[in-house]
Amino acid sequence: MTARPRERTTITRLRERARTDRPALDALLDSTHVGHFGLVDDAGLPVVLPTLVVRDGDRVLAHGSTGSRWMRRLADGAPTCLTVTALDAVVVARSAFESSMRYRSAVLFGTCTELAGADKSAALDVVTDTLIPGRSSEIRRPVARELDATLMLALPIDQWSLKISQEWPDDPPEDVAGDAWAGVVPLRHSYGAPLPAPDLRTGIPVPESVHRLLADGPSA
Amino acid sequence: MTARPRERTTITRLRERARTDRPALDALLDSTHVGHFGLVDDAGLPVVLPTLVVRDGDRVLAHGSTGSRWMRRLADGAPTCLTVTALDAVVVARSAFESSMRYRSAVLFGTCTELAGADKSAALDVVTDTLIPGRSSEIRRPVARELDATLMLALPIDQWSLKISQEWPDDPPEDVAGDAWAGVVPLRHSYGAPLPAPDLRTGIPVPESVHRLLADGPSA
Repeated sequence: MTARPRERTTITRLRERARTDRPALDALLDSTHVGHFGLVDDAGLPVVLPTLVVRDGDRVLAHGSTGSRWMRRLADGAPTCLTVTALDAVVVARSAFESSMRYRSAVLFGTCTELAGADKSAALDVVTDTLIPGRSSEIRRPVARELDATLMLALPIDQWSLKISQEWPDDPPEDVAGDAWAGVVPLRHSYGAPLPAPDLRTGIPVPESVHRLLADGPSA
Repeated sequence: MTARPRERTTITRLRERARTDRPALDALLDSTHVGHFGLVDDAGLPVVLPTLVVRDGDRVLAHGSTGSRWMRRLADGAPTCLTVTALDAVVVARSAFESSMRYRSAVLFGTCTELAGADKSAALDVVTDTLIPGRSSEIRRPVARELDATLMLALPIDQWSLKISQEWPDDPPEDVAGDAWAGVVPLRHSYGAPLPAPDLRTGIPVPESVHRLLADGPSA
């Protein structure tokens, strides 16, 4: 595998939407936990694998089963591209051409490392506590069989690009002078009331971690 | 390029979650409009491109700028993989290992066709009216310059797989007998109040299309 050049992360179009600030990248990764990993298969064809992703400092964690051939391929060092996208609003312009979406999208290039031992165990806690705040301290520790069945990957946050569009409709003057409405319709995300499992024993209250999840609100 | 074999769409793991019913695929594609296209670049490395996707019968439409090199590459017939993912709920189990998400995920393989002429124009209306119901009849028709600047791609719905997980926590008896809570926290999506553009002329009401958008609710 040749080294991936920096220019792979240079955005050539819509340059005004390209960002290089790391805090904006972290904000996206900390609020949106669906990631899409790109891979090239043995026939040279592309595959896109959806998975949960969680930022842990300067790396992105993704976990799955040791039985997943695509996770296995990532663990073996296959070059990858991870894309994380959040939609924030519908942009309703005065023409179809100018209508669009407000969105944030990050693209990261690199290769994953498979974590092991204490690093793997700590990473699992980070994943659990990011998705359900404080949950790891409410439940038993993972047992060896569970850790063995889990593949934990880390992708370094190193080569990346970010596009953010938070625009208003950008209609030409002749359309603005017309009768069509223009504006933005924001997308909202929230959690519904927790539903107890059918096999939940009576007398067990909704835990603090789930209350915190509801209070924090979901990812974008 | 060799032909892509059918077995690429055979899901080897978690077979109980794999679906082959087309109505379930259509339901996902009709409610979730963020797609991630996978491509292989000139160096043989994977790239994952986020874009809006809209189902139109037996094909998925995606549009972009003629100036986008990745859209151009798709238009030129590069083999691709399109993945569309919806998260429906957080599954809070009695262990980290069993905790997960309810999700739906479709993977489509194939090559895109670039649309032209009347087919392209009609496809643009389908995209507009799917994203903002009935909007195309409220606004002026696209002009030639706008159509020329727009690349409209169609990916046939032919080779695909679908995974759906709508499970409850599946904890072993010894965990069910313990004190940890278990259940599901549903994710909800909605639209906020429409925000008029800063340059909107006074006296122009929110249009029927936006009222329909709010009534229908957003994608998952």
